[in-house]
Amino acid sequence: MKIAVFGTGMVGDTIGSRLIELGHQVMMGSRNASNEKAGTFVAKHKAGASAGTFAQAAAFGEIIFNCTKGDASIEAIKLAGDGIMGKIIVDVANPLDFSKGQPASLLPALSNTNSLGEEIQKTFPKAKVVKTLNTMWCGLMVNPTMIGGGDHTNFICGNDADAKAKVKSLLKEFGWKDQNILDLGDITNARGAESVLPIWLRVWGATQNGAFNFKVVS
Amino acid sequence: MKIAVFGTGMVGDTIGSRLIELGHQVMMGSRNASNEKAGTFVAKHKAGASAGTFAQAAAFGEIIFNCTKGDASIEAIKLAGDGIMGKIIVDVANPLDFSKGQPASLLPALSNTNSLGEEIQKTFPKAKVVKTLNTMWCGLMVNPTMIGGGDHTNFICGNDADAKAKVKSLLKEFGWKDQNILDLGDITNARGAESVLPIWLRVWGATQNGAFNFKVVS
Repeated sequence: MKIAVFGTGMVGDTIGSRLIELGHQVMMGSRNASNEKAGTFVAKHKAGASAGTFAQAAAFGEIIFNCTKGDASIEAIKLAGDGIMGKIIVDVANPLDFSKGQPASLLPALSNTNSLGEEIQKTFPKAKVVKTLNTMWCGLMVNPTMIGGGDHTNFICGNDADAKAKVKSLLKEFGWKDQNILDLGDITNARGAESVLPIWLRVWGATQNGAFNFKVVS
Repeated sequence: MKIAVFGTGMVGDTIGSRLIELGHQVMMGSRNASNEKAGTFVAKHKAGASAGTFAQAAAFGEIIFNCTKGDASIEAIKLAGDGIMGKIIVDVANPLDFSKGQPASLLPALSNTNSLGEEIQKTFPKAKVVKTLNTMWCGLMVNPTMIGGGDHTNFICGNDADAKAKVKSLLKEFGWKDQNILDLGDITNARGAESVLPIWLRVWGATQNGAFNFKVVS
């Protein structure tokens, strides 16, 4: 499948690399087509990797992973222009606010009674936003079997059932088992998924280990 | 041990009943000493149960459980007066905001860059606030072995190490294993523990089962 990855940081690199490993073609999208990290990404993969602007990547991909920083996501997707029309945007970003000390809080305008996921959906109504994977370290997003036999929980939400089914199919390629993917419902449930960050950051701080995830035990 | 339970709702009743079962003496505290639910509580327990005002209960208890509603907790504890001086307040409440639709959000003034736990500590500096147990249904708070062999996570935080140790000892009486009690650090970490609610409420909604908890898997 042709997939666009917006954002060339650690999360984008990790997801893009795993997608290529799985046989997909990936175009890294960034503000500037000559982005250095995107160049490094293309160079390290023998085949399947390319780089372009957000607009070029959006036009290329059937699915778009949003791995940009949460406070810059809306702006980045705006730069993609019409290329996102009808496309699935897998939003793995978090609206972290680093301006008020550590650990980060959430951006007030994008939390509690709103969320980044639903703000993207509201701003780009012709895209199909699916929020998932944002509640863990990127290494686990694409390799859940790294811990606990893969038995821990990944939340998913979004307004479009078909889009969620397609994303679930990709999640299974990553190693996620059906019973560990918990569908919370429509995109407003991104408020819940993103509210995991304040506790995630503190568990990380207390344990000094980021390779953990939450499991719903019942 | 003599323990005060502030709040006569389901949470207070559940915690108070379990404490009596474990051999403690419990005084239920409420705004009004003739509170009907407190009366029912006293009547259903053959021994060990009593009822009084917040002030009477605070004076009675070595430890105080705050099981009042989050938006009323500060006011309730104010009514307790000097009885809370030097006491441990185990804060299991959540600053839920029911005014903006379902599922509840968090009260803006008591979330994100603040929390109910730390607001109680700031308002009552002579008490020792320990936040714990607020991330689950009350049935599991006092009987964790009800699910998953008891292997799921309970967070704890607070500024006073001795107070946390005393509360941990009570948690173990409830059935919590040492390795499942995760100390997040000082009371500002209540921001993390309380941020679990938005995802908790949505998992409950999606699964229609409140008898679940989160486990940190690593």
